[in-house]
Amino acid sequence: MPDPRFFDRAGPFTLDALCGMSGAKLLSPEDRTRVFSDVAPLETAGPTDVSFLENRKYIDAFMGSRAGAAFVDENAAERAPPGMALLVSVEPYKAYALAAQAFYPNPDVVARRAPSAIINPTAVVPDDCEIGPNVVVERGARLGRRCHVGPNTVVAAGVEIGDDCRIGSNVTLSHCLIGSRVVLHPGVRIGQDGFGFAPNPKAPIKVPQLGRVLIGDDVDIGANTTIDRGSGHDTVIGAGSIIDNLVQIGHNVVVGRCCILAGQVGISGSTRLDDFVMIGGQGGLAGHLHIGRGARIAAKSGLMRDVPAGETVCGSPAVPLTDFMRQTAVLQRLAKKKGRS
Amino acid sequence: MPDPRFFDRAGPFTLDALCGMSGAKLLSPEDRTRVFSDVAPLETAGPTDVSFLENRKYIDAFMGSRAGAAFVDENAAERAPPGMALLVSVEPYKAYALAAQAFYPNPDVVARRAPSAIINPTAVVPDDCEIGPNVVVERGARLGRRCHVGPNTVVAAGVEIGDDCRIGSNVTLSHCLIGSRVVLHPGVRIGQDGFGFAPNPKAPIKVPQLGRVLIGDDVDIGANTTIDRGSGHDTVIGAGSIIDNLVQIGHNVVVGRCCILAGQVGISGSTRLDDFVMIGGQGGLAGHLHIGRGARIAAKSGLMRDVPAGETVCGSPAVPLTDFMRQTAVLQRLAKKKGRS
Amino acid sequence: MPDPRFFDRAGPFTLDALCGMSGAKLLSPEDRTRVFSDVAPLETAGPTDVSFLENRKYIDAFMGSRAGAAFVDENAAERAPPGMALLVSVEPYKAYALAAQAFYPNPDVVARRAPSAIINPTAVVPDDCEIGPNVVVERGARLGRRCHVGPNTVVAAGVEIGDDCRIGSNVTLSHCLIGSRVVLHPGVRIGQDGFGFAPNPKAPIKVPQLGRVLIGDDVDIGANTTIDRGSGHDTVIGAGSIIDNLVQIGHNVVVGRCCILAGQVGISGSTRLDDFVMIGGQGGLAGHLHIGRGARIAAKSGLMRDVPAGETVCGSPAVPLTDFMRQTAVLQRLAKKKGRS
Repeated sequence: MPDPRFFDRAGPFTLDALCGMSGAKLLSPEDRTRVFSDVAPLETAGPTDVSFLENRKYIDAFMGSRAGAAFVDENAAERAPPGMALLVSVEPYKAYALAAQAFYPNPDVVARRAPSAIINPTAVVPDDCEIGPNVVVERGARLGRRCHVGPNTVVAAGVEIGDDCRIGSNVTLSHCLIGSRVVLHPGVRIGQDGFGFAPNPKAPIKVPQLGRVLIGDDVDIGANTTIDRGSGHDTVIGAGSIIDNLVQIGHNVVVGRCCILAGQVGISGSTRLDDFVMIGGQGGLAGHLHIGRGARIAAKSGLMRDVPAGETVCGSPAVPLTDFMRQTAVLQRLAKKKGRS
Repeated sequence: MPDPRFFDRAGPFTLDALCGMSGAKLLSPEDRTRVFSDVAPLETAGPTDVSFLENRKYIDAFMGSRAGAAFVDENAAERAPPGMALLVSVEPYKAYALAAQAFYPNPDVVARRAPSAIINPTAVVPDDCEIGPNVVVERGARLGRRCHVGPNTVVAAGVEIGDDCRIGSNVTLSHCLIGSRVVLHPGVRIGQDGFGFAPNPKAPIKVPQLGRVLIGDDVDIGANTTIDRGSGHDTVIGAGSIIDNLVQIGHNVVVGRCCILAGQVGISGSTRLDDFVMIGGQGGLAGHLHIGRGARIAAKSGLMRDVPAGETVCGSPAVPLTDFMRQTAVLQRLAKKKGRS
Repeated sequence: MPDPRFFDRAGPFTLDALCGMSGAKLLSPEDRTRVFSDVAPLETAGPTDVSFLENRKYIDAFMGSRAGAAFVDENAAERAPPGMALLVSVEPYKAYALAAQAFYPNPDVVARRAPSAIINPTAVVPDDCEIGPNVVVERGARLGRRCHVGPNTVVAAGVEIGDDCRIGSNVTLSHCLIGSRVVLHPGVRIGQDGFGFAPNPKAPIKVPQLGRVLIGDDVDIGANTTIDRGSGHDTVIGAGSIIDNLVQIGHNVVVGRCCILAGQVGISGSTRLDDFVMIGGQGGLAGHLHIGRGARIAAKSGLMRDVPAGETVCGSPAVPLTDFMRQTAVLQRLAKKKGRS
């Protein structure tokens, strides 16, 4: 079970209730009143734990699991060990996520302002916010209702934040407007100057960075990620987008709705992503590009050109996936010939 | 116009004045007394805004712009929409930068020491500095005149900082000597131990890191960038160099004057860059290399060898640009053949 | 000599004593009573300094050095300048490291609790710890004996830390159990949510992250590195492992004992490294992989598959080193042909 030093559990729940909240269907309706007290991975789950199988790589763990119940897709059902109740879903991972949220809801925000927090008198911080020790909120900043701000975080002058945001510790926010239900992990930096310099013999000349960062609702941003403000236009992160740790987003970048950027991705200035774009870990995008809706950029790609909607690209310089696979295959064949000769 | 919650505007200025400060020339001298109140991007500028065109990708935006004036090069002049005053320069982006600095000068440093700042009695912090809340300045550290230090930043024992530096929030400085007019963005880490370990069966043996970090004048360092101190020699960043976000600089690295390192670049220990070197985003350099003056290392390159002055390299392992382009072309042709066969 | 503003020196030591602590042997036993006061790099060392030669790239510096003594291997001995005492070792860098630790031991931890530190009454912080200004230790957290915690660091609820740890400034720790003698550099983030989301049309659904981060003894973690907690299993860093700056470690990753991860490495979720694995700078690993004991993954590699014990891989997608070298050679030859034709 999750370590009680760190996690507070709700429940228990009947399988019937878990089906209700997750949209899954019980394979054997007679299991509906069985009661479960926790979620757990296949390898460690016991008879009162609910688990899940999504990645086929773990089919052996599934077949040997002692979990009392599991979210699965239809095909996995027949491989289940005897006695395991099956919660069938076309999206078992999503169904599990909803059940796990029921067992482990987000901790309530406790209305509280640490005595050491330093809040400028012109800032607006509702009483139902939870403001940690040493938080600094500068002149004219405005927080929404029920926000949680972790220790040692700085909200600079004029920043606006919506309702129900959870902002980690040691975060720095400036020159930005943030939506509701946004999650910012520790060490996030939003709104600092973009990388704008004009070449000059003695030392580059700084171009004033006069835009902002706009963060939509339900955005989640990982630890130590940096998002620069726009140079004239704004830098924009669309609602529902998910950004992992140590990602760099340059000035004027526009990220559409529900995009997913994995760890250490870098996006250069003025590149635009339409909705539902996915970028794998360490992917890098040149500046001034346009990436169409639903395009996928593989991990480690170095992208130098626009990508049409729906296309998957890979490699450095990145090319369509089929081309990349052909290139890789050709190169391997030639190298093998050389090895033999 | 830039959001007044975040930016304070100066001006207005006549075109004559803007020419004076930027070195541009008015195409139609009769425009010289026209008065402008702001700068703005081509797409959003109005009749009293000055804009600019540098990247030809935005020529359509230029032709459709309502900007009252724009910095341009000679060639663009004939594509300008009617009524737009043209400020002609061989370097329109630089000219724009200088004008924008006039409209939006750096905010004055306000002599102020937050009551919550913790400054060791042996540290030197001039009265004209602006020291934010919860700043920690340890034993024997010395700041120059008119420095701005953001909230929750730590200046460790013995660190020296020149005049007119702007240091962001949540920064950590140790074992370093910093010049004047240096800008450090939030979350920068300077002076921590380098990655020095001797192999050993039980656990690697730490090699004491006994050097410093020396930062020249007019250096600008991006958010969450890390610069390790030297192991015996110093790590050095030359005057006028510009370093973007999330860059990693290893121990004993020497960066020359006016180098430009884009986001997520990594430079391994003891590599030396001469002056005016440029490295594109996510470029990685092995250790103990020498990069000649004015060399350019393309984005995403993996560099394993020295680079002579003035050369451009690309790829991983990085090769001269011409070779890289040939390699890419050959591979694409072979892959295409394979696709057809 | 190392800058006395930053470093306190012990000693002096006789060569006899230095041999005793480092395991090196004096080439000329008559030198045993000579006394040395410091360590220094070959280029700057003087007659009372001890230096070392390990990398043959620096043989010229060695031959021209004024160092009074140097750690070397047998082969280098005959190239030494006259008068230099030679401390011969099969591992001269390791021997130097041990001697340098004697001259520059870690500063003692001074039992002290800054008045501005905010320590929850239910937390356990022994009196012999050194707790910097503005440190926050939350409910139920426990520190071991003689820990040093730098300014503005946050130790969240329930975290446990062993003895003799050195934790830098502006660090954030949550949901983790940390061993003894662990070193965490500034800006490290440990224990935040992993990147767990189930796809969903409106906005991805967050999967509760219910595991922890377990850090073994003698681990060293670089500045601004991020380690996410497990999703159900724990994320684990094995004893004696060394992690450089700006590294990203995803949820459920298991790193074995004495692994070495260079700067900006990224490891995706649920990948397992056995003991003694090395990953070069900017190396990226896909999720759910297994890397065998002692495997080496070259800098900048993009790894998509398991790696057997002892194998060295390189490239993106990464292949065994021999294959990579063949691929590179073939491609260069073909490109050269094209260039000539």
